[in-house]
Amino acid sequence: MSRPAPLSGFPEWLPAGRIVELHVLDHLRRTFELWGFAPLETRSVEPLDQLLHAGEIDKEVYVLRRLQAAPGEAEDEGGRRLGLHFDLTVPFARYVLENAGRLTFPFRRYQIQKVWRGERPQEGRFREFTQADVDVVGAGELPFHYEVELPLVIADALGGMRDLGLPPVRMLVNNRKVAEGFYRGLGLDDVPAVLRAVDKLEKVGPGAVADLLAAEAGAGPAQAKACLELAAISAPDASFAERVRALGVHHPMLDEGLAELVRVVEAAAEHAPGVLVADLRIARGLDYYTGTVYETLLAGHEDLGSICSGGRYDTLARAGDQTYPGVGLSVGVSRLISRLLGRDLVAASRPVPTCVLVAVVAEDQRADSDRIAAALRRRGIATEVAPAAAKYGRQIQHAQRRGIPFVWFPPAATPGGGHEVRDIRSGEQAPADPVGWLPPVADIWPQVLPGAVT
Amino acid sequence: MSRPAPLSGFPEWLPAGRIVELHVLDHLRRTFELWGFAPLETRSVEPLDQLLHAGEIDKEVYVLRRLQAAPGEAEDEGGRRLGLHFDLTVPFARYVLENAGRLTFPFRRYQIQKVWRGERPQEGRFREFTQADVDVVGAGELPFHYEVELPLVIADALGGMRDLGLPPVRMLVNNRKVAEGFYRGLGLDDVPAVLRAVDKLEKVGPGAVADLLAAEAGAGPAQAKACLELAAISAPDASFAERVRALGVHHPMLDEGLAELVRVVEAAAEHAPGVLVADLRIARGLDYYTGTVYETLLAGHEDLGSICSGGRYDTLARAGDQTYPGVGLSVGVSRLISRLLGRDLVAASRPVPTCVLVAVVAEDQRADSDRIAAALRRRGIATEVAPAAAKYGRQIQHAQRRGIPFVWFPPAATPGGGHEVRDIRSGEQAPADPVGWLPPVADIWPQVLPGAVT
Repeated sequence: MSRPAPLSGFPEWLPAGRIVELHVLDHLRRTFELWGFAPLETRSVEPLDQLLHAGEIDKEVYVLRRLQAAPGEAEDEGGRRLGLHFDLTVPFARYVLENAGRLTFPFRRYQIQKVWRGERPQEGRFREFTQADVDVVGAGELPFHYEVELPLVIADALGGMRDLGLPPVRMLVNNRKVAEGFYRGLGLDDVPAVLRAVDKLEKVGPGAVADLLAAEAGAGPAQAKACLELAAISAPDASFAERVRALGVHHPMLDEGLAELVRVVEAAAEHAPGVLVADLRIARGLDYYTGTVYETLLAGHEDLGSICSGGRYDTLARAGDQTYPGVGLSVGVSRLISRLLGRDLVAASRPVPTCVLVAVVAEDQRADSDRIAAALRRRGIATEVAPAAAKYGRQIQHAQRRGIPFVWFPPAATPGGGHEVRDIRSGEQAPADPVGWLPPVADIWPQVLPGAVT
Repeated sequence: MSRPAPLSGFPEWLPAGRIVELHVLDHLRRTFELWGFAPLETRSVEPLDQLLHAGEIDKEVYVLRRLQAAPGEAEDEGGRRLGLHFDLTVPFARYVLENAGRLTFPFRRYQIQKVWRGERPQEGRFREFTQADVDVVGAGELPFHYEVELPLVIADALGGMRDLGLPPVRMLVNNRKVAEGFYRGLGLDDVPAVLRAVDKLEKVGPGAVADLLAAEAGAGPAQAKACLELAAISAPDASFAERVRALGVHHPMLDEGLAELVRVVEAAAEHAPGVLVADLRIARGLDYYTGTVYETLLAGHEDLGSICSGGRYDTLARAGDQTYPGVGLSVGVSRLISRLLGRDLVAASRPVPTCVLVAVVAEDQRADSDRIAAALRRRGIATEVAPAAAKYGRQIQHAQRRGIPFVWFPPAATPGGGHEVRDIRSGEQAPADPVGWLPPVADIWPQVLPGAVT
């Protein structure tokens, strides 16, 4: 085998990077659990027809085929082809339908898994990446207050990562009812066409959007102008509602959407001050959202795009007459981690879990070192034994190269004939007892800390 | 969408099962870290040519194709097709080659991920499943003592799960040098043919193996008899070595292998008494092993097959003249979990992380309940707020159905006008303070305990 090269779009980290990623995943998981979300994992594959049914991103799906399958042989007993899931919402909706009788609603779950999209790789856009999703799903109905709660879960999760070096986040929130009510109140009834046009605002600018609105949604100049004025409204508090009303458009759905958006923004002002912003330009690409929609930007890293998006959906899971409306958000973990690592915003204090390397006096005394290591591990101190009974200087050098902070010397290695432990950073060496010694708390496990660039 | 059915071979658990699985994964991870193994995650895909190069299980590989790819269009820039990895050893070997300059050797890593094999599903055999691997890899050389250490890591990891309800495990250990030296000492030089025949012992019995040895390895009756006698030797201590020597076969490689196997068994007798057994029948299916090989059976569940296998390998990773010999073991997590859950050996104390449900007095007082929940979460108590301001009896019933042990009543809900918390299992209700109350330690998080069948 010649030395292989990385595959574009399939990121991998060195161990120190994986330590950072695991730290972030542990933190997300703990936050989700503190809010009462149960863990769930779904299989990585879904029948292709269900994947294609659920979205417009069919060209991004990876299809599976067994290498030795007979031509035309299908991949499951149902005779259907299988594809890798491209998000965690579609499999979750399927899981809820499949297990509805065994779940209690509203059902709260989080799910942290890889997803795959055959897109052209770019910075922060991968073909294989990890998402961390939280959703609440009701049977038949789902009260609005969950649209208030979900962004607070994320604000709690991401806010708690500030001391790791994560920059502040800004969640942009809108409500589909505001947009749809406003367009209908204006007399524009092809709402998807208007949404599609407005969604291009950042990319093509207001002039081109006005042209699109005219061409594809039949908007006159005054209607197009009003749509652009709506999209320009943004506020960190409830003041946005007055600015929308000042545009003079009236529709019951607009009123309902504004009231809902005010509740989201006001609850966030209490529980997560400074995080949420009502931004009436936010539309979200996928078209199954029906209420509040969310996007999240990292301050100073807006070029990265949204690191956490989602919204309220009503029609994703449906079996016969029964629907399962939900609201959820998805953190783009790989996108976040790649930026945190790529810009040295966050770093692990060492690339190994090991706290202590036990030196070996001679190969025939390795068992003594193994016993010391076992005693330290029993007390929760991560320990490994030196690879070879080399000169002690070389054993210390091995610890140094691996990033292990302490080297333990068995009695046979010390002049005094007792156990000693050396902090190889300071060079300080002191007597120690394998059943009593403890390292400083900060050294027990690798820490994840703000990186060189703060 | 009609109600979907499960896909055979792609297991999924209910939330209570996932809680058990996460508990097991957390325990494995912590044990591996205590032994100084660094976390690693590799991408799920490898170029197909590398997957096929590494093993004889080509027909089990899932190949990927982008749904909208042009005919003949390859899946990466190198023009190569991609497949899902079928184990974690092959991707690890590739990762080591790719990153050798940035790793310190001997390099110790663990890796817990999904793998995929397009095999016919059976009990305990899945098409998608989770493996937890530990390996040590050296640059150019790897001292034998790692073959002693690795099974101790696994014995520690699996032994520590006894109090969850895991039955005792028995690790069967052999050494390729014992087998190869013995066969060569007997005059049988087509070692792979002998290994393949002996590997069928359990399936076809000694008579058929003797026939196979004659037909495919050219063994005479005395040679075949000796091979079968070797395979029948098994002992929990070093006594196996005498029994092998009593067969009267001599070869330097046999002596080396016996000495190594004695060291493995004796170290295990000290550090993990009762777990390891030398079993000279063990061969392992994959043919890249060169030294110690391991299989692990669950007492009373031997029908499940091995739940943790591995061995010493020397030629898996090689770039030019540089080789990276290693030794590793892989826990079949999905196989283990499916048996633990399927036979009720282990259970979660509740199917939600939530410890407290805060009741809601009226929808316009929901914010009060949200504040109580936030205060509890800040102190690490997993809390959710009732879905609706229903009658308190119904709110308690909701907690009951979800498995939440405590319901919190805000002041406006209690006769005395103070906070109260109710243990819904005992019905006991008492005054409590949101900034001071703590649940019993056993209730803070779901516990994983031996199930009904012990």
